Amino acid sequence: MSAPKAGLAPIEYADASPEVRAVYDDIMATRKVDWVNNYWKVLANDPSTLRRMWANTKEVMGPGALDPLTKELLYLAVSVTNGCRYCIASHGAAARKKGLTPEQHAEFIAIVGLANETNRHAFGLDLQIDDQFR
Amino acid sequence: MSAPKAGLAPIEYADASPEVRAVYDDIMATRKVDWVNNYWKVLANDPSTLRRMWANTKEVMGPGALDPLTKELLYLAVSVTNGCRYCIASHGAAARKKGLTPEQHAEFIAIVGLANETNRHAFGLDLQIDDQFR
Amino acid sequence: MSAPKAGLAPIEYADASPEVRAVYDDIMATRKVDWVNNYWKVLANDPSTLRRMWANTKEVMGPGALDPLTKELLYLAVSVTNGCRYCIASHGAAARKKGLTPEQHAEFIAIVGLANETNRHAFGLDLQIDDQFR
Amino acid sequence: MSAPKAGLAPIEYADASPEVRAVYDDIMATRKVDWVNNYWKVLANDPSTLRRMWANTKEVMGPGALDPLTKELLYLAVSVTNGCRYCIASHGAAARKKGLTPEQHAEFIAIVGLANETNRHAFGLDLQIDDQFR
Amino acid sequence: MSAPKAGLAPIEYADASPEVRAVYDDIMATRKVDWVNNYWKVLANDPSTLRRMWANTKEVMGPGALDPLTKELLYLAVSVTNGCRYCIASHGAAARKKGLTPEQHAEFIAIVGLANETNRHAFGLDLQIDDQFR
Amino acid sequence: MSAPKAGLAPIEYADASPEVRAVYDDIMATRKVDWVNNYWKVLANDPSTLRRMWANTKEVMGPGALDPLTKELLYLAVSVTNGCRYCIASHGAAARKKGLTPEQHAEFIAIVGLANETNRHAFGLDLQIDDQFR
Repeated sequence: MSAPKAGLAPIEYADASPEVRAVYDDIMATRKVDWVNNYWKVLANDPSTLRRMWANTKEVMGPGALDPLTKELLYLAVSVTNGCRYCIASHGAAARKKGLTPEQHAEFIAIVGLANETNRHAFGLDLQIDDQFR
Repeated sequence: MSAPKAGLAPIEYADASPEVRAVYDDIMATRKVDWVNNYWKVLANDPSTLRRMWANTKEVMGPGALDPLTKELLYLAVSVTNGCRYCIASHGAAARKKGLTPEQHAEFIAIVGLANETNRHAFGLDLQIDDQFR
Repeated sequence: MSAPKAGLAPIEYADASPEVRAVYDDIMATRKVDWVNNYWKVLANDPSTLRRMWANTKEVMGPGALDPLTKELLYLAVSVTNGCRYCIASHGAAARKKGLTPEQHAEFIAIVGLANETNRHAFGLDLQIDDQFR
Repeated sequence: MSAPKAGLAPIEYADASPEVRAVYDDIMATRKVDWVNNYWKVLANDPSTLRRMWANTKEVMGPGALDPLTKELLYLAVSVTNGCRYCIASHGAAARKKGLTPEQHAEFIAIVGLANETNRHAFGLDLQIDDQFR
Repeated sequence: MSAPKAGLAPIEYADASPEVRAVYDDIMATRKVDWVNNYWKVLANDPSTLRRMWANTKEVMGPGALDPLTKELLYLAVSVTNGCRYCIASHGAAARKKGLTPEQHAEFIAIVGLANETNRHAFGLDLQIDDQFR
Repeated sequence: MSAPKAGLAPIEYADASPEVRAVYDDIMATRKVDWVNNYWKVLANDPSTLRRMWANTKEVMGPGALDPLTKELLYLAVSVTNGCRYCIASHGAAARKKGLTPEQHAEFIAIVGLANETNRHAFGLDLQIDDQFR
């Protein structure tokens, strides 16, 4: 038998086991779309991680105390800070779908940039935390 | 004359030049507070950077297309991703002042954690960007 | 004479100096392969760094107190955390060659993701270190 | 009513709800210890995240395809790369408990350092992925 | 009206507003070149950010206390540490234009790699700061 | 015998083996100082890593194509980007010793901050590399 491949191929719906299809079905129903993106299709090579991560995503990113667009933007702010191209593409698309306007996107980019800048000022200047913040 | 110190001392209002005081005054007036935090007081050792960074902060973090709490949370999401203690303390305080509830804070922490996790899944699995996201 | 190029071209064996060839020969002999990967061929533009880094790699990644597969996976965990595509490709291949199974790879991805998640929980919650850990 | 505090206090067993106690009990039983560390006690301010993260940790870090010490070291490699002090303290303690020797620890530190170094060589030299790795 | 696109198109000089053209003109005059790179052309979708970032760049990267090549190399050291391909390409080109020799470039890569390595040794060993450094 | 301690104690000269003392002696002679900082004293718990890292440091940070102050500042730029407190303290002290002025330090902080900001603009906007930079 051959060694595992360098990259894992996405598993398409037609080729998926019933266990994997059940997760795909729930993803599509929850998101009201008729396709599943590569993150889940590659994760499906390990069905237990697929199931676990989808359950986490539903719980964390589902309706809650913050509005859906804010939640996507937080996800995107992390992804931009880490330089994750795939994540920026997928969560950027999700944010637009949830109503992100060009003006909000421009402001978002400016904030994420500024925060990364001042984080380094704080590191470089070894700032002491003000008593008022404790 | 001695070499510059290891850490720069914060410059208090009483010891500040008129140029620096003008920035401090604007910070306090804009934020409706009667004190200035260490970030600005240490930055004041270099008045041109103090002036420049305050102008940037006012422009980026002032009223805009995103609501004030969302803007603070984006700043905080970057700071948590980078592990900047000072920034987490200062922007966490700012977010609470802008109305962050404990439920929203818990949700925020969960999102930032999850995004950092799935960013690494995307890196590790070398995901290709779906055509639908382009 | 022209300025240095934007990207440094890999130096092939046929074009390499005796000093560089000696390193290439040792790489191939140590790894029991008949080719040298781009990391070393690009580094060869600076023979002293090539020599130094190969000596470091042999010493750190050679037989030691941890087994060879664990060592590759540690290298890979760092590379995934940093989002280094080249490093993920090269050390992923090395790990497969050292026997990484698909089940182990899936578990590896899950651990690296989870650690990146809980690292941010620890940052965001500003956790104090328990006495028991000291 | 007051705004949420800057830092969340750990919730001790004696003060915990039955739901939180059930998680604490499972943590102690699974780990065969009689105490719970601050990560879980602070997370307990949000019982659903406490429950969710413990379930994830049990599934990912429990018995699997990689041996327990390797799993802890992978966790630790991520934490060292990110500079997470709490995580280094807690997972370092866990690794020692699982048998990490001083020789293995020294080797671990050397590998994590080297990988972070060569990751930046790969970034800086913009290395192309060798066909043999695809 | 359609939602904002996934990627923002660069705005060419011919299509730019007078406000944007004024920034482009200043960029070209300051740098003594007859073209503007994509960073500015994409940023131009948000003219106020374009204006703000160019003003910051001129102030920070203009003539000062450090020589121009050192300034570019510092920019590049950050970009390599973060793995930002675009930034490495653009600031690498700028450094070569300012006289970076192949020998200096090789030394630069070695330093940035070594610093990233020893940073992790310091994290992993939880080093205490020597009194002499305070 | 007890398990390895949570933190490794620095090894003082008086308690060091001849092998370790030889490295300490070379560090002090090279730097023209009469003490050794904690990085080396903690690393000395693993004499082969101590020897290896000192050899690397001498080769990379010794006299070369870039001037000594520039080399320290590059080290410091990486350390600030990564938020490594120990490294910022030690390499900041080294830079001051090599002549860093307060004006240069202020400019350094501004550059490192700006680069971290624009790196995220580049990530967030998914910039394509200009042909002119290739």
